[in-house]
Amino acid sequence: MNPSERIDELKQLVDRALGLILDEAGGPPLLRRAMAHALLSGGKRLRPLLVIASSELFEGTGADPTAAACAVELVHTYSLIHDDLPAMDDDALRRGVPTCHIVFGEAMAILAGDALLTESFHVIAKAYADRPAVASAVVGEMAAAAGCAGMVGGQVLDISREDPRRFGAQEAGPIDLRTVHDMKTGALIRACFTIGAILGEAGDGDATRLAACGSRTGLAFQVIDDCLDATASDDELGKSAGSDARKGKETFVSLMGLERARAYAVELKEEALSLLSGYGENGDLLRHLIIRAVERRS
Amino acid sequence: MNPSERIDELKQLVDRALGLILDEAGGPPLLRRAMAHALLSGGKRLRPLLVIASSELFEGTGADPTAAACAVELVHTYSLIHDDLPAMDDDALRRGVPTCHIVFGEAMAILAGDALLTESFHVIAKAYADRPAVASAVVGEMAAAAGCAGMVGGQVLDISREDPRRFGAQEAGPIDLRTVHDMKTGALIRACFTIGAILGEAGDGDATRLAACGSRTGLAFQVIDDCLDATASDDELGKSAGSDARKGKETFVSLMGLERARAYAVELKEEALSLLSGYGENGDLLRHLIIRAVERRS
Repeated sequence: MNPSERIDELKQLVDRALGLILDEAGGPPLLRRAMAHALLSGGKRLRPLLVIASSELFEGTGADPTAAACAVELVHTYSLIHDDLPAMDDDALRRGVPTCHIVFGEAMAILAGDALLTESFHVIAKAYADRPAVASAVVGEMAAAAGCAGMVGGQVLDISREDPRRFGAQEAGPIDLRTVHDMKTGALIRACFTIGAILGEAGDGDATRLAACGSRTGLAFQVIDDCLDATASDDELGKSAGSDARKGKETFVSLMGLERARAYAVELKEEALSLLSGYGENGDLLRHLIIRAVERRS
Repeated sequence: MNPSERIDELKQLVDRALGLILDEAGGPPLLRRAMAHALLSGGKRLRPLLVIASSELFEGTGADPTAAACAVELVHTYSLIHDDLPAMDDDALRRGVPTCHIVFGEAMAILAGDALLTESFHVIAKAYADRPAVASAVVGEMAAAAGCAGMVGGQVLDISREDPRRFGAQEAGPIDLRTVHDMKTGALIRACFTIGAILGEAGDGDATRLAACGSRTGLAFQVIDDCLDATASDDELGKSAGSDARKGKETFVSLMGLERARAYAVELKEEALSLLSGYGENGDLLRHLIIRAVERRS
């Protein structure tokens, strides 16, 4: 099976597992419909695939990565729902369909996001109950990536720099674009790599190398996101394209220009790949995913 | 030291620990100010005290309950911030001060809630890193109580029954008030007891007994909340009193009348206390907390 075929197969595996997680979560059907709307409407499943591919680098008696992979996707999806809310980015289109608050209303969208975040930790505790050291480490890694010093903190910086007067951000001085993205999207992508290392029972050296590889991949992913926002259509992206420019938002494209931004992403990709040079064919899937993340058209 | 003095001492311990957790969370100062506004503006700290008191029933070589106690308070505080949002209950006053979104705006209030929820799991993973079986079990218990089949699900039912047309709740049939409260507030209060049992390394029989005791306490707490909403002033409650009646909301008072509701709370309290009869003076603190929760005036 070549990497593309494996990716298709793993995406199906992840989609099925996500559906089961929702079924098992219980609670009001309306809540689960709002969660499913956001969770099961496509998506590249990049993060779950990165978790699985990272865990495959190692030959250990690692735990099954599927649950951890799904948990990261739950966290990612919650962040999309909350970012799209009227009080935040106020976006009406996501993954090619109307956003959660457009379909279910604002209250239900807030709660669906809350539930996805909560269930992400629930899934890990349940799936790795017989491997508590794995469960505890994965929870710690995911929470660190998603919390104050990671994703939520990055979103705070991002909305602060867009509207500094409203959020009193001037007190913090100018906010570096790389810092924003490293926290807002980089931290969770990096966590996919380090969670893979935990699942694969990697040693300290490998874990550090994977964190570095994850940092480059996360930043490259965001640079390409900025390039696509500037060049692709709504249909290609499945969300509102050109929104950065409309909002006058600082991006890697506005800072560097399109060509230099693309070259920067390629450079980050090469660095990420070189960090994986020692893993032989165990690294085929992860290398393929990194290349795809940078060469994607949507 | 009598139970009242111990409670004052433990509240101070919890307040200090919560302050440290915020300091260690990192991220943008603005975010931490919004979190601190909600987290450190008073509050009875009932839930952390219940965790600590429950863990004290057992003589085991239990882990220090402070971190788990604080984690539950982070979850509770996140739920207050999100419940108070304009899209939900739209409340302007909480714990005697303006609500988070009134002071920091809606976007920051959503993010402060998200961060508190995320950090709650982070705290557990960090504090019990050397006791991963405890960490994993506490995460599982807390997530189950806070997720779809618990707190978030209960809030969905609660807003659905207030506005059934908007949320299409009629498909689920009439929603029982006890079910709503058992999920919305009962599940997390019950989890305080079961988390205490995990920390105290209690056996299965003790854990089941504590869960039953927690269910009664949680329901009694909510019945008293309804009674106080109908009788106390804004100043006494630190939040808008009489809001249930203004919203025409079904409560234990509207269903049973004030006197029968109070009697029902006392009955639940007696059941809870009788479940603790076998624990001797190890149960003094927990019994005192349960009595206080039912006899409170705010």
